[in-house]
Amino acid sequence: MNAEILCVGTELLLGDIVNTNAAYLARELAALGIGCYYQSVVGDNAGRLAESLRLALSRADMVITTGGLGPTYDDLTKETVAQHFGLPMELHQPSLDRMKEILERRGRPFTKNNEKQAYFPKGARIFPNDQGTAPGLAIEQDGKIVIMLPGPPNEMTAMFQQQVRPYLESRSDRVLRSHTIHLFNIGESAVEDKLHQSMLDHQNPTIAPYAKLGEVQLRVTAAAANEEEAEAMMKPVIDEICAQFADYVYGVDVKDLQHAVVARLAQLGKTIAVAESCTGGMVASRITDIPGASQVFLCGAVTYSNESKMAMLGVSPRTLEEYGAVSRQCALEMARGIRAASGADIGLSTTGIAGPGGGTPQKPVGLVYVAAVDGAEEKVLELHLSRGYDNQRELIRNWASMYALHLVLELCKKDK
Amino acid sequence: MNAEILCVGTELLLGDIVNTNAAYLARELAALGIGCYYQSVVGDNAGRLAESLRLALSRADMVITTGGLGPTYDDLTKETVAQHFGLPMELHQPSLDRMKEILERRGRPFTKNNEKQAYFPKGARIFPNDQGTAPGLAIEQDGKIVIMLPGPPNEMTAMFQQQVRPYLESRSDRVLRSHTIHLFNIGESAVEDKLHQSMLDHQNPTIAPYAKLGEVQLRVTAAAANEEEAEAMMKPVIDEICAQFADYVYGVDVKDLQHAVVARLAQLGKTIAVAESCTGGMVASRITDIPGASQVFLCGAVTYSNESKMAMLGVSPRTLEEYGAVSRQCALEMARGIRAASGADIGLSTTGIAGPGGGTPQKPVGLVYVAAVDGAEEKVLELHLSRGYDNQRELIRNWASMYALHLVLELCKKDK
Repeated sequence: MNAEILCVGTELLLGDIVNTNAAYLARELAALGIGCYYQSVVGDNAGRLAESLRLALSRADMVITTGGLGPTYDDLTKETVAQHFGLPMELHQPSLDRMKEILERRGRPFTKNNEKQAYFPKGARIFPNDQGTAPGLAIEQDGKIVIMLPGPPNEMTAMFQQQVRPYLESRSDRVLRSHTIHLFNIGESAVEDKLHQSMLDHQNPTIAPYAKLGEVQLRVTAAAANEEEAEAMMKPVIDEICAQFADYVYGVDVKDLQHAVVARLAQLGKTIAVAESCTGGMVASRITDIPGASQVFLCGAVTYSNESKMAMLGVSPRTLEEYGAVSRQCALEMARGIRAASGADIGLSTTGIAGPGGGTPQKPVGLVYVAAVDGAEEKVLELHLSRGYDNQRELIRNWASMYALHLVLELCKKDK
Repeated sequence: MNAEILCVGTELLLGDIVNTNAAYLARELAALGIGCYYQSVVGDNAGRLAESLRLALSRADMVITTGGLGPTYDDLTKETVAQHFGLPMELHQPSLDRMKEILERRGRPFTKNNEKQAYFPKGARIFPNDQGTAPGLAIEQDGKIVIMLPGPPNEMTAMFQQQVRPYLESRSDRVLRSHTIHLFNIGESAVEDKLHQSMLDHQNPTIAPYAKLGEVQLRVTAAAANEEEAEAMMKPVIDEICAQFADYVYGVDVKDLQHAVVARLAQLGKTIAVAESCTGGMVASRITDIPGASQVFLCGAVTYSNESKMAMLGVSPRTLEEYGAVSRQCALEMARGIRAASGADIGLSTTGIAGPGGGTPQKPVGLVYVAAVDGAEEKVLELHLSRGYDNQRELIRNWASMYALHLVLELCKKDK
């Protein structure tokens, strides 16, 4: 079975909102083993919507739409699908009762146009909406399926999880499963250069590289009769890649470096504290973005000024004078200082020149030191992160944060 | 002229990434007065890409693509467009030289597959990529235009701003100019409610609202023979809106709250220090993301644990015991503490429950206090940021950061 995603809404065409619905549905469909070759966006226009629907149904077994189920005159999805299949619209009394109840609870008046949301093409399977007024629905006809979901992401995702996914799972005869291998500190073309033949050779499972900021991901996907078989097909491929890129792989299915760091520290029962200069709080913010970070993260210091480096971290005035704030020595003293001040198992630091100002010939923009220390070991990296163009401050800060997080994983390698 | 957006990438079809490029381009095209009726996404597949291109060119005067310009064998956009128009691919030596230089600077090897990025359809107009290796390009043929941009958003947006927009503007006989008014702490529907008639009345300049996370932007756009005329048409409209929404407007063309804060502090010659609990470094990171932040930002403390709140900020054990870490009192002591410890003019703090865990009936997830103090005044806000659904941690942290930044602007209102 393959599907297409068709998102309806002029606000998408105008760029007023980002289409997170398409990404969400795409991911869910992939996880269900339903292929998806096209996504489209069309505005609240009857003719173009009908044309897009016709095209999508000519290419796919199933079309999932979002949007256009609301009460206003330009909400046209149900009516357009009904017309496509030649179905009359019928009142669904339970939906009408439910809607009146919801509006009453919210203290909103029931206006005549709300009634529109309780009319459905004859024979539709109705998905009640427990987060809003517009129900979703599915139509099966002529060997095709059209599933219509509301546009607001919270309504759409809740309806998908609770009602649409079970409906779809009951219909499929094979499963598709994927794993994603995360590599850091290697470029996409270098990965592909080494893997080129392997990628061509593997048809099932397939291997696909994705370049993300600062990392490369390799997605291994198998199609099989069941989950166990798919997993068994993927395992040797994943093991081989992990061995081949052992110096770069930091995890499989780990989401990102900060998730990997928090998981690793939690697994080891270790705590961390962070002292940041050039990253300015980004490392701490990334770690604390992970639910449950409070188990492993004690505190952070964003020491932009030299005074704060001395006062909060105990960096020695002499180090600052002799080597400067952007130096291997200062990075180490910062990491040691935050570790000592906080009592954390690991101290992590960053100091560097993010630009655009502040660079010198000896210490150019992009020069960054990151250090990670625990009781047994001290690691420092000297990084040259400039790409030589304007407006790279954010990029340098991002990379520096990623290298810092990665250094924690390196430091923890010795702990089995 | 009307256009279509065609985004190429299997990672979009699989939902690995959200299609922010489409929203960005849609918005830019709307601002240029170029209509856009369809957006599509297609994977890295030659046949389907060719088919989508053919369809888009049959419906629109111009197609803008993103993605598929990289070095790997599944990057097919240029080749597919060349084939569509019957154009041979040719080496562009300056692009090759530039790419070698970039890779050398980054210390990465030049691999054979990189060369692919320097081949273009004959007659293409080339847009150098100053943020990455893959140049963009435009082809004009048969009365149609195809503009191909790289997939990574930072590369795409920089290329659009610096090269594609001027290219598109040069093809039109009138100029379009916009200003964006930024409002905080008011909802889009409240803004629209008050402005409804005004939005309908104004055809040139137009007024368009955009809801962003935590803020509403009003974009005022004028079409005129030249820039001066456009500016003169917009001024009275902008003045009127700023007066009408005086309590909410925090700036015009200011980019975002952190830019406004850094600019305001720099203008006043004031410094700031930040103490964060639930935002975990996000406020400091946002401030230090702005070039020149070191002029106004002294330091930050990310005090997740109670111990660090006492040690780094001098929050009294009694306050923590009596009121808890998430309290008005603690927020104030944190702000005062970081101000005193750093010697900054302004101390700013956040403390709250970002979730998903940690909430209680008395102090539920989403309860956040932010405080800002200077020598003359102390401001505290109690916020209830929960929307009642799962997975809202990031949202709560984001909003809390924005309210904190906004509170600095409020605190500075008295300083003329």
